[in-house]
Amino acid sequence: MAVDDLEPAIELYTKQFGAELTHRAANEADGLAAAFLRMGDAEIELLASLREDSTVGKFLARRGPGLHHVAYAVADVKKALADARAAGLELIDVVPRIGMHGVPIAFIHPRSVGGVLTEFVQE
Amino acid sequence: MAVDDLEPAIELYTKQFGAELTHRAANEADGLAAAFLRMGDAEIELLASLREDSTVGKFLARRGPGLHHVAYAVADVKKALADARAAGLELIDVVPRIGMHGVPIAFIHPRSVGGVLTEFVQE
Repeated sequence: MAVDDLEPAIELYTKQFGAELTHRAANEADGLAAAFLRMGDAEIELLASLREDSTVGKFLARRGPGLHHVAYAVADVKKALADARAAGLELIDVVPRIGMHGVPIAFIHPRSVGGVLTEFVQE
Repeated sequence: MAVDDLEPAIELYTKQFGAELTHRAANEADGLAAAFLRMGDAEIELLASLREDSTVGKFLARRGPGLHHVAYAVADVKKALADARAAGLELIDVVPRIGMHGVPIAFIHPRSVGGVLTEFVQE
């Protein structure tokens, strides 16, 4: 979820919806700050922009805060990417890179997935 | 996820992403058709419009296909709604109604939840 400010969003999800803040991270190169919250069997990633020209900054300027992408845990991001490519899906990351969790991730272009920016995250 | 057509979206999620189709439903009154797919510990709801003036039809016309809302399973939708209201969140459904799963659901307005249309679903 793309948010204007991390702190009120963290407060909303922990106080109102029973989520548990597990991890914070920032990626200065990409201009992103994130908070990860456990919500039942799933995880909510709150993404804020550190700069107007970051990907999330542009998203916020264009669409406002809201749902940004969905990530699926996979055993092997490299294999998931190869399968996606073989199926003709358009990859954003041709090879996995290290995400804010410190594990390999890769994105599939929303054009290939019904408008949904889709991420694989190594389990 | 709001989709233009259910069938290709079901095929994408079952064949490429390993999801399992568990349930289909339609709500003629609301002009919606849905497919529910199990994806690990979560569920993907694919939502298509049966009419241009349905909520999903308007969403598709305005934003195109993509992420539409997030639902959280709760033990008691009525209590979750009361808690949300007490916290000052803006309710779309003041009392729970029966969703396409046949169980009580209720929506919270995205204005109160950082632009994310948020649903409670009875476990």
